[in-house]
Amino acid sequence: MERGYEIMERMPSEFSCKRRIEFAETDMAGIAHYSVFFRLMEETEAAFWRSLGLSMFVREGAGPLGWPKVRVSCEYLMPVRFEDVLETRLRVEEVGKRSIRFGFCFRKCSAATGEPERDVARGELKVACVLMNPGGSEELKAIPIPEEIRAKLENGPATS
Amino acid sequence: MERGYEIMERMPSEFSCKRRIEFAETDMAGIAHYSVFFRLMEETEAAFWRSLGLSMFVREGAGPLGWPKVRVSCEYLMPVRFEDVLETRLRVEEVGKRSIRFGFCFRKCSAATGEPERDVARGELKVACVLMNPGGSEELKAIPIPEEIRAKLENGPATS
Amino acid sequence: MERGYEIMERMPSEFSCKRRIEFAETDMAGIAHYSVFFRLMEETEAAFWRSLGLSMFVREGAGPLGWPKVRVSCEYLMPVRFEDVLETRLRVEEVGKRSIRFGFCFRKCSAATGEPERDVARGELKVACVLMNPGGSEELKAIPIPEEIRAKLENGPATS
Amino acid sequence: MERGYEIMERMPSEFSCKRRIEFAETDMAGIAHYSVFFRLMEETEAAFWRSLGLSMFVREGAGPLGWPKVRVSCEYLMPVRFEDVLETRLRVEEVGKRSIRFGFCFRKCSAATGEPERDVARGELKVACVLMNPGGSEELKAIPIPEEIRAKLENGPATS
Repeated sequence: MERGYEIMERMPSEFSCKRRIEFAETDMAGIAHYSVFFRLMEETEAAFWRSLGLSMFVREGAGPLGWPKVRVSCEYLMPVRFEDVLETRLRVEEVGKRSIRFGFCFRKCSAATGEPERDVARGELKVACVLMNPGGSEELKAIPIPEEIRAKLENGPATS
Repeated sequence: MERGYEIMERMPSEFSCKRRIEFAETDMAGIAHYSVFFRLMEETEAAFWRSLGLSMFVREGAGPLGWPKVRVSCEYLMPVRFEDVLETRLRVEEVGKRSIRFGFCFRKCSAATGEPERDVARGELKVACVLMNPGGSEELKAIPIPEEIRAKLENGPATS
Repeated sequence: MERGYEIMERMPSEFSCKRRIEFAETDMAGIAHYSVFFRLMEETEAAFWRSLGLSMFVREGAGPLGWPKVRVSCEYLMPVRFEDVLETRLRVEEVGKRSIRFGFCFRKCSAATGEPERDVARGELKVACVLMNPGGSEELKAIPIPEEIRAKLENGPATS
Repeated sequence: MERGYEIMERMPSEFSCKRRIEFAETDMAGIAHYSVFFRLMEETEAAFWRSLGLSMFVREGAGPLGWPKVRVSCEYLMPVRFEDVLETRLRVEEVGKRSIRFGFCFRKCSAATGEPERDVARGELKVACVLMNPGGSEELKAIPIPEEIRAKLENGPATS
């Protein structure tokens, strides 16, 4: 499992993934392009939803249920390069009525041990619970987070 | 109009756009990543459809009508770099019953005159005429190219 | 000039570009992916540097001079879709000793008139003035903004 | 290891990786954008080089040694969607004096078993062995594949 994602579950509200920086994600400055961290955040968010038995985008029901971003940010501490392995750690910072705020910490892993060593970036995604195209329209409609989703956010994956 | 697209219409079946290579499109080798040419082909195809008063993706009717790719290729002749201006020339090579084959030629423009100077790549997209999700399904259904689209492909933009 | 960038220069410290949302920039929710706004900010920053007779990435000298991001953010007000034309307006908010803070406002343009109509997003990039790989190392070294660059930032493009 | 890459080594000349389609890789047609397959090919190529104890981009020596693409193609058999797991299988089809031709087969894996089930696409990358920027120039210079690389391509990873 040299390349790719490893997933480590902690508390319901903490979650992390590891993966390598790919060649296409570098730029002519020789480092990972700054937008890559927004991909990593979203990939980790999607894996977090899956860990709860859910999905970031669900087609059924009154219209697809999705979680578009409301406000996002990232702070860069150190450059990251091709083939570096990053751990992206997600934390549920706040669950509101219609939105969730996720915090992220990115750590570069040791080439020797694979263990996370140094913080390289930090970020945040605030996402809203939204019905896409309700009634066939082109609108997004923010709705209260459904109870069954809220329960999973609070309790983590059910054990069978 | 220093930066960006200029569009030059020729015959109905020929069409071209110009735009610059952006920073995010470079990789650590200091050149445009090879996948960028597939973005340029698709951007030019989309502009071609608009030049006919159509769109590459239409939501109305029995299901969205789209043109997913069936087979694509690209051949690279010279590296291209940040801030180079490329002309992407599209040619309708073949209109079949349910598919179209577009050929593309990429030329780097002179920094001094803006005129295309050297061929840097050549590519091809074969696209199929498809109903996306017909009847709410997850399938794509290839259909004959509708007559009004075929007519525009043959005649180019109507003059009023 | 139906498709692509139009550039409007205002004061030295204000600058704007227009371009369309491309098909590859949409996601399965049917809207522009949130990371697209970070591409638009960087594309507009690059065009701003060109408007001053400079470049966002310069290879000469003691090591390439670049402007990696230190902290970035974006706030999303309305969804944006395929073929929407956005105006991205850049404002130089602050020029520090070794960094610059750019503010961005995104406006969706009317399909009828092409004029910007509604704010759809707002963002910010804080970038540092950096020598990449000084002395062949893998480091980035923040340096004071060179005087000739600072002068252009203050005065805008020289008139000949 | 629910999400991400699993690597399966076969003969020196065959190699495969698995990973999920991410949300950012979908488009408004609800399927993976066609350019994603070119990312998957390159990611698998990079993992293949690592499996030989090498890297796709090496900075040392007379100039960075890289493998830019000369000619690429992809054929699409079935649409692929968000959270589908794909196996990308690489095969070394041909090792020339200065170039290599890799063939790729993409298979969608069963949600139930994780086993590859159906071919969804096929592709090819022809890459050249190149010194980037030899002598500080902006050129790429094709060179014969170095003997130690050729040996590893033929013998696969050394066992210790």
